[in-house]
Amino acid sequence: MNKQIAILGASGYTGAELVRLVHAHPNMDIAALAADRKAGQPMASVFPHLGHLDLPDLVKIEDIDYSNIDLVFCGLPHGVAHDFVRTVPDHVKIVDLSPDFRLEDGEAYEKWYGGPHKALDLQGAAVLGLPEVYRDKIKSARIAANTGCFVATSLLPLIPALKGGVIDSDPIIIDAKSGVSGAGRGLKEPMLYSEANEGFNTYGVAHHRHMGELDQELSKAVGKDVCATFTPHLVPMTRGMQATIYAKGDANAVRAHLASYYADEPFVHVLAEGEVPQTQHVKGSNICRIAVFADRQAGRVIILSVLDNLMKGASGQALQNANIMLGLPETAGLGIVPMFP
Amino acid sequence: MNKQIAILGASGYTGAELVRLVHAHPNMDIAALAADRKAGQPMASVFPHLGHLDLPDLVKIEDIDYSNIDLVFCGLPHGVAHDFVRTVPDHVKIVDLSPDFRLEDGEAYEKWYGGPHKALDLQGAAVLGLPEVYRDKIKSARIAANTGCFVATSLLPLIPALKGGVIDSDPIIIDAKSGVSGAGRGLKEPMLYSEANEGFNTYGVAHHRHMGELDQELSKAVGKDVCATFTPHLVPMTRGMQATIYAKGDANAVRAHLASYYADEPFVHVLAEGEVPQTQHVKGSNICRIAVFADRQAGRVIILSVLDNLMKGASGQALQNANIMLGLPETAGLGIVPMFP
Amino acid sequence: MNKQIAILGASGYTGAELVRLVHAHPNMDIAALAADRKAGQPMASVFPHLGHLDLPDLVKIEDIDYSNIDLVFCGLPHGVAHDFVRTVPDHVKIVDLSPDFRLEDGEAYEKWYGGPHKALDLQGAAVLGLPEVYRDKIKSARIAANTGCFVATSLLPLIPALKGGVIDSDPIIIDAKSGVSGAGRGLKEPMLYSEANEGFNTYGVAHHRHMGELDQELSKAVGKDVCATFTPHLVPMTRGMQATIYAKGDANAVRAHLASYYADEPFVHVLAEGEVPQTQHVKGSNICRIAVFADRQAGRVIILSVLDNLMKGASGQALQNANIMLGLPETAGLGIVPMFP
Amino acid sequence: MNKQIAILGASGYTGAELVRLVHAHPNMDIAALAADRKAGQPMASVFPHLGHLDLPDLVKIEDIDYSNIDLVFCGLPHGVAHDFVRTVPDHVKIVDLSPDFRLEDGEAYEKWYGGPHKALDLQGAAVLGLPEVYRDKIKSARIAANTGCFVATSLLPLIPALKGGVIDSDPIIIDAKSGVSGAGRGLKEPMLYSEANEGFNTYGVAHHRHMGELDQELSKAVGKDVCATFTPHLVPMTRGMQATIYAKGDANAVRAHLASYYADEPFVHVLAEGEVPQTQHVKGSNICRIAVFADRQAGRVIILSVLDNLMKGASGQALQNANIMLGLPETAGLGIVPMFP
Repeated sequence: MNKQIAILGASGYTGAELVRLVHAHPNMDIAALAADRKAGQPMASVFPHLGHLDLPDLVKIEDIDYSNIDLVFCGLPHGVAHDFVRTVPDHVKIVDLSPDFRLEDGEAYEKWYGGPHKALDLQGAAVLGLPEVYRDKIKSARIAANTGCFVATSLLPLIPALKGGVIDSDPIIIDAKSGVSGAGRGLKEPMLYSEANEGFNTYGVAHHRHMGELDQELSKAVGKDVCATFTPHLVPMTRGMQATIYAKGDANAVRAHLASYYADEPFVHVLAEGEVPQTQHVKGSNICRIAVFADRQAGRVIILSVLDNLMKGASGQALQNANIMLGLPETAGLGIVPMFP
Repeated sequence: MNKQIAILGASGYTGAELVRLVHAHPNMDIAALAADRKAGQPMASVFPHLGHLDLPDLVKIEDIDYSNIDLVFCGLPHGVAHDFVRTVPDHVKIVDLSPDFRLEDGEAYEKWYGGPHKALDLQGAAVLGLPEVYRDKIKSARIAANTGCFVATSLLPLIPALKGGVIDSDPIIIDAKSGVSGAGRGLKEPMLYSEANEGFNTYGVAHHRHMGELDQELSKAVGKDVCATFTPHLVPMTRGMQATIYAKGDANAVRAHLASYYADEPFVHVLAEGEVPQTQHVKGSNICRIAVFADRQAGRVIILSVLDNLMKGASGQALQNANIMLGLPETAGLGIVPMFP
Repeated sequence: MNKQIAILGASGYTGAELVRLVHAHPNMDIAALAADRKAGQPMASVFPHLGHLDLPDLVKIEDIDYSNIDLVFCGLPHGVAHDFVRTVPDHVKIVDLSPDFRLEDGEAYEKWYGGPHKALDLQGAAVLGLPEVYRDKIKSARIAANTGCFVATSLLPLIPALKGGVIDSDPIIIDAKSGVSGAGRGLKEPMLYSEANEGFNTYGVAHHRHMGELDQELSKAVGKDVCATFTPHLVPMTRGMQATIYAKGDANAVRAHLASYYADEPFVHVLAEGEVPQTQHVKGSNICRIAVFADRQAGRVIILSVLDNLMKGASGQALQNANIMLGLPETAGLGIVPMFP
Repeated sequence: MNKQIAILGASGYTGAELVRLVHAHPNMDIAALAADRKAGQPMASVFPHLGHLDLPDLVKIEDIDYSNIDLVFCGLPHGVAHDFVRTVPDHVKIVDLSPDFRLEDGEAYEKWYGGPHKALDLQGAAVLGLPEVYRDKIKSARIAANTGCFVATSLLPLIPALKGGVIDSDPIIIDAKSGVSGAGRGLKEPMLYSEANEGFNTYGVAHHRHMGELDQELSKAVGKDVCATFTPHLVPMTRGMQATIYAKGDANAVRAHLASYYADEPFVHVLAEGEVPQTQHVKGSNICRIAVFADRQAGRVIILSVLDNLMKGASGQALQNANIMLGLPETAGLGIVPMFP
């Protein structure tokens, strides 16, 4: 029998993407859709492109009947998920797309998100939802805390490279670029078409919230404090993300190590020497493509990592986590071929 | 001595465009900038691209000192300009970019704009600001009512063609396409980058507000009621506008008539047979390019008219009107060469 | 056992799209890929986004071994498919994406394509591949001649409307807009990013090749010669197509008739009154969305029809035809949910 | 009397941009336009957006009559300018937009451009055309060798920072991003709209030709060999360029030093602390905007530098050089206000 799924925050882009994925999933049914401000509306009015699917109408979050629900995707804003998780019955697994359960340390949470962690007692039930790193823990976790999109893009090459000792932990410079959909559906002037189109912008220089997750995971990988430089930029395209990473190491060794580490992973592809990953080649898919280049300066390496921010960077990763948590084949519903052009 | 200019609604796109134009104008100075919600701010914080210019800070509209002002560009929302114009001293000329004074008939105004015309007594002082048609009247007018961008694009070929009797007045079908900047800087979900990008949309089918102006002017051109079909579409680009117009007539006669009519006009260019106008070839300029094609059905004609919606469709036309009203050379400050690519 | 499929012209966009579709199809295998200029290369070097799939290398067209092939998708240029089809063994069904078998009349072919129809003897084995109109004939046809993308977009609303007598056959004005991918992967200056970006262009005014197909099918629908006006435009987006159609008729009657005609069709959706179709809402899917509006002039109607030019306008339609010809469920492999944003 | 100008390579984007600029220049006339493959054509057929200007037709390069020419802008491919310059009479000044005279060292030229420097005897007559650094030498130079666009973007902040000793010379990491127009008008598949749109790409990792110029100038600035890391990326927009630069230094000191260095420069603007430059805010202008941020790691600095690659990165810089060489006001014809949106 198919797993019954609820999607909260279904009126946002990651919500729509989850509907696209779960609808096509061979072992899942969409049992409930929730979005507070749009409660009462059919999905067709919120996302016309889903209008022809047979979907439940949007309800308020508190009106979800969890009795038959197996798993909930929680796409609520940060700070809200802490409280919300308490309202979910124990039999329901949770994939949280917010940052609320990503940081294990309450002080770190408060530093980066400007308010107290309100569910530290539940933090132990949560695992960072990066399947290629934490697969075993995710299997038995109650809560998978999906990583941020920048974080997934950066950690997929960096964690194995650091663990394998093929790059130094300092300096690590992550020059990151994101498509505009990463900013979500909120109404902000810089996200208007006429403002973002035909322009390249930098934001959150040296103080982007995703740094907390980066610090935590990079530090865990080497067993000491790591503090990477991280600069996010906004690219005039809807989907796609790239991290250009500068570190010390030998390119051949890094490439070989990553290729070996990811040899059996279905969604992380390490390219052969000389091949260049492009965001347009992973669009709509759950694939992350990684390439390693020798810098012109001996002993320095340039790593490129690309993915679709709404997929492997958000909803695709979330579904991958859900598959693991529910004992389904990890690739179920995720074999989508990239759409190009 | 340079003419002193005030720009109201300077925090919007047409306002920014007017600053760009007036700043470079050899006979004008920017004496005041106003925008109610942003009053008190420097232009640099509202439009960083203008930050290096020596501009007055934004003030509230009621705080403008008109004593030295020669002309005001009024970029206020419809319904507001009616009242505002009464507050402007008599010695100040007005170019109104809102629709408030475009419709000569109070009932027509109410029909299209959903509220009463509050300044019918001043309507007589206003002339539609389409220089190629109403130049003589604009010279002595107190108020030039700038046309809408769709209207300029459509009327420039249609009025002379109708007056010259080279096309029939029914049917006239105007299939219009606009870049996204035409929607202004307001925060609306369909104008978000991720919503408008990579998509083509239709809006206001059969009931767009610009139809009131079209009706009025097309009817005046032939001396009887004309009711054109008009369908506006949204194109994923920032600037540019095209009207593809279908009518009955002989293409060679229409082309010859328009070419003759516009032979001495600096800003309206009628292309030779076979040449196709493209919006990217007028970007940033005050130029309208018009081409006439024979339809495959004898006796039918297809007219293409393109311009930059923020320039000849708005701020460029406004400056052209201002030049005429102030007795300056009509092309002053408007010789900008299109920017391509 | 799965049907064995060959794809010719696999180095073009419709070829890539067919690989994406057939790869995910539950009842088909990709047995051969051919592209003359790229013969010998792996698909990974021609289309990196397909590099992780287990695909056969590209071969020359004449090197395909047809012994196990059930169906070939033929994406060759016009004029070439005529000769090619003779080389295909009788047991192989053909879906031809070129225009070579769309026109039943040799003179019409010569008129629109500038050379003789070289396979008139085989024309009788071909059926126009518009499933919603010719489904029964396609079932038993040897050759399905996929329609052009503009033609699919236009005919889906027009054929039933004409057959049902709810619109007049004259005048019919089709103002069509296409994303840039419709131009294919050939190297032409107007298709460079810097040329097509941020611009709206018109091409083939009054003499586009797709008119031959339109004439033929519209005329068949009413049993007399029909000659529609047709103006194609290029929109700065990769995928998507819209036809804005102007005709005489009653909007409610047209909408009701189309809704009834398409009530059971999985891929053609007629929208409720007031809903507006947008190309971004069908991206990547095989869906055509149609809406009908009353013009402001009584007795005139505006029909909007949108689809993804590479999908329902090309490769999706081709797969739908293949499903029908091979006796598979018509929707197999085509349930792709549109990708938005 | 106006200076008489010839523009070679006028059929490319930098050529069109030079026409736009020189046409509007108060002290220059366009006396000749040359482009070998398009010789004999009017500019209107090569660049329709310039069609309304009164311009000379394109001629072959060898057909230019230099008798009245004061200065030639040479936009020929690398390797060609070496020979060409010998054909230009001594009284004619040259602004070379190719890389042929940028590298002072013949071996360096051969290393980066794959062929011998064929005019080393003339190299001494050439000065790197970076006005903010080499203004005095440019005044009396016969040849100004315009820098590459990436080089201008990088050197404008780096040279004064290195000379001032406020950053270390190692490591310097330049993560650079360019709009597509930087690739020129040549027909290459990756530059097709459907390939470059909606994607982010990296190219020339660790071996881009501009590195030769960077090495030379950075080394000269500190008096020892400097080897910066440099990674260029392609952004889906037509114009705009950003360098995100990572180095060691104190942000406040760097910002203060650059602000002081550029205090009187009309085209290089150093932003106040916290302000972020965006490429869309310099579009169409000759302005470079620079901002300096403290990295989260003490003692490290992030410098952002943005400009319009066709203007300050190419044709605008070229005109600035020409003004200097001809004794005209350096800002003449370059006061263009950025166009936004």
